[in-house]
Amino acid sequence: MKDIHFICTYCHKIYSSDHVHPRCDECHEPLEVETVERGTISGGNSLNQTILERYADFSPFVHIDKQLSLGEGFTPLVASPKLSSGLGIKKIFFKNESQNPTWSFKDRGTVFGIQHAIRCGYERIGTVSSGNMAASVAAYGSKAGLRTVILVSATIPMEKLNPISMYGPMVITVDGDYGDIYFRSLDIGKQNGIYFINSDVPFRVEGSKTIAYEICEQMNFETPDYVVVPTSSGGNIRGILKGFEEFKLSGFIDRVPRMICAQASGCSPIYNAYAAKKETISRVDNPETIAHAIENPFPPSGNEVLRKLRIQNGIFVAVSDDEILHAQKKLAEDGIFGQPASAVGLAAVKQLMNRNMVKEDETVVCIITGGGLKYTAVYEKHNLPIFNCSLDNVNSFIAHHA
Amino acid sequence: MKDIHFICTYCHKIYSSDHVHPRCDECHEPLEVETVERGTISGGNSLNQTILERYADFSPFVHIDKQLSLGEGFTPLVASPKLSSGLGIKKIFFKNESQNPTWSFKDRGTVFGIQHAIRCGYERIGTVSSGNMAASVAAYGSKAGLRTVILVSATIPMEKLNPISMYGPMVITVDGDYGDIYFRSLDIGKQNGIYFINSDVPFRVEGSKTIAYEICEQMNFETPDYVVVPTSSGGNIRGILKGFEEFKLSGFIDRVPRMICAQASGCSPIYNAYAAKKETISRVDNPETIAHAIENPFPPSGNEVLRKLRIQNGIFVAVSDDEILHAQKKLAEDGIFGQPASAVGLAAVKQLMNRNMVKEDETVVCIITGGGLKYTAVYEKHNLPIFNCSLDNVNSFIAHHA
Repeated sequence: MKDIHFICTYCHKIYSSDHVHPRCDECHEPLEVETVERGTISGGNSLNQTILERYADFSPFVHIDKQLSLGEGFTPLVASPKLSSGLGIKKIFFKNESQNPTWSFKDRGTVFGIQHAIRCGYERIGTVSSGNMAASVAAYGSKAGLRTVILVSATIPMEKLNPISMYGPMVITVDGDYGDIYFRSLDIGKQNGIYFINSDVPFRVEGSKTIAYEICEQMNFETPDYVVVPTSSGGNIRGILKGFEEFKLSGFIDRVPRMICAQASGCSPIYNAYAAKKETISRVDNPETIAHAIENPFPPSGNEVLRKLRIQNGIFVAVSDDEILHAQKKLAEDGIFGQPASAVGLAAVKQLMNRNMVKEDETVVCIITGGGLKYTAVYEKHNLPIFNCSLDNVNSFIAHHA
Repeated sequence: MKDIHFICTYCHKIYSSDHVHPRCDECHEPLEVETVERGTISGGNSLNQTILERYADFSPFVHIDKQLSLGEGFTPLVASPKLSSGLGIKKIFFKNESQNPTWSFKDRGTVFGIQHAIRCGYERIGTVSSGNMAASVAAYGSKAGLRTVILVSATIPMEKLNPISMYGPMVITVDGDYGDIYFRSLDIGKQNGIYFINSDVPFRVEGSKTIAYEICEQMNFETPDYVVVPTSSGGNIRGILKGFEEFKLSGFIDRVPRMICAQASGCSPIYNAYAAKKETISRVDNPETIAHAIENPFPPSGNEVLRKLRIQNGIFVAVSDDEILHAQKKLAEDGIFGQPASAVGLAAVKQLMNRNMVKEDETVVCIITGGGLKYTAVYEKHNLPIFNCSLDNVNSFIAHHA
């Protein structure tokens, strides 16, 4: 490890680099890795690198174990002329995180977290997840040869369990919501020697920084006006913002984009606190949204997201399931098929333009957090047409209908 | 278009660059783009390029429309120390094509094919597909704003249709097998002005070449002894071999790897012809394999794959569904979750090592053709364990069982 420290995001208490518990002993807010002052991007072609190597100056590690990588990150930034003209906005881009090894952004944080777990001597890892993170930690745990425990809320759609179990971890459905299980896992980890790479461990946040670094490179260091992040636990948006701030500190960019924290209105604890002008979030009772991947009723980084975005003039927004479904179809009709949570960004931009909060001469990047094949029950909502023909009739059918 | 020609892979008849029909008028074998003599790799970081740009010297296009790209290619090459020691082989790598925009290798060929379709003035495209290619052509067709017709065998697992229809094409299930529909589509295309970007159109083969180029770059131009390709229509293995041959011609590599054409024994027309020492393939009656993505009973490039691999001392192999399922689980337990067809490569290597045809001091690259979420009915075959616990009991359950 480099000579780094963890710092509490709220009270600024300092912890040493072998600290594993993700929250402050005093104020119970999340810790983060203290930012190094300046750094540079390793040159060359990303085809021959991992994100750990390319952005090594900005990571907490001196030695990197490349063999723990599955080839995460370096995802495309796709411009959409069609959707930008439809929205009446200057430019909209999609950072397609569904092109990761387990088809969500989680892989970036997992490859960072697992480096730390192994460095600290752990032989068992775990996570508490509503789906994407579970698949990711299971995959990387298997790759690293570690015993892996996945705790999942028993309310998870059943179709999400098998693709986690395929990787070979111990999958346990627990009768409780994500918020309850998250806090319980901290004790379970301590008592059983399991490193829980949960959504807001400092190293997962470090992994999410690389999304910002790549956006900067892909936009030739001209940052967009906004970056929209579908937000659940809050770890990803924290990491992306930290990444932009570090690149500004290092002189790569002139300004940090305004972050948009986008939630589903069926579970929007951070947006609710913002709207009610509160300092801290409150647990959402009976969360319900089609965007299961961001259905966390009591996000562990919620207060910190509130604080950070208020400082940087960020935006908080909540979108309905109808807005999400509409955006999901629009995205697919532009070639990008994301899970419902992935469409929350586009839905948010549309709403914010209608409210005149995002302007037509501005540029936006939306994070596509995970792939559409992750949640197939959503097809029912779209009334998708499928035709049938005999081999002999197909020519005339096409001549008349295509 | 550059000053290129199509050439018949069998009788070598020459066709002009605006030719659309993918097969020779005389001998009915597939056409291919005539190889340019030498080329070079565009430098720089692949994060800021498309595959069309990086390998432009080896593509048939003078002008490239980047806006048709969804960020295909530049997929990881993942080494597996665990599986290589398990197999007793020097090194095994996996080229993970499930990290493409629609989660299969097809996207490479589609982005090439659609350039040609638009250049030739088409406003409608189509494909005949058992799944992966359909999703890919639908996505790129939507991105390009073209009307897209997808012909699918009515025997396709239903779960594959919705994720195709999401992109907005006209999906038609046709009562017939893939082989019948393929040949019918050639007439439908002519009569209705639809460019069918089928599995072996010359430009799709051009796209598959980029898999070889990337492997060369990722292995620092020291090519492996073998590249194993799960093979259905034959277009992908043709493209990968052509890519290696072109890089050898251009002086980037010293030798072309031996290609392994791996099929499922429930549908192995190319392997059958090889085993029977025949010059041409015969249609497989009643194909049946868990690897639906490669279940083509009469592959349009079958004869050409036979010819080319015989010349280069390639290997033909067929693996059972049991071998495929075993390999699929082993792969997932190393962090890579592919659809059953994707596991055919690893299953083939295992069988060939048992038969002493691949040796322990050799190096192999397996192509992971598509992602595991594409075919979820396979979970039933794996007897995946999932546990349940109350929130209060989870700590003691883990203490005793994890």
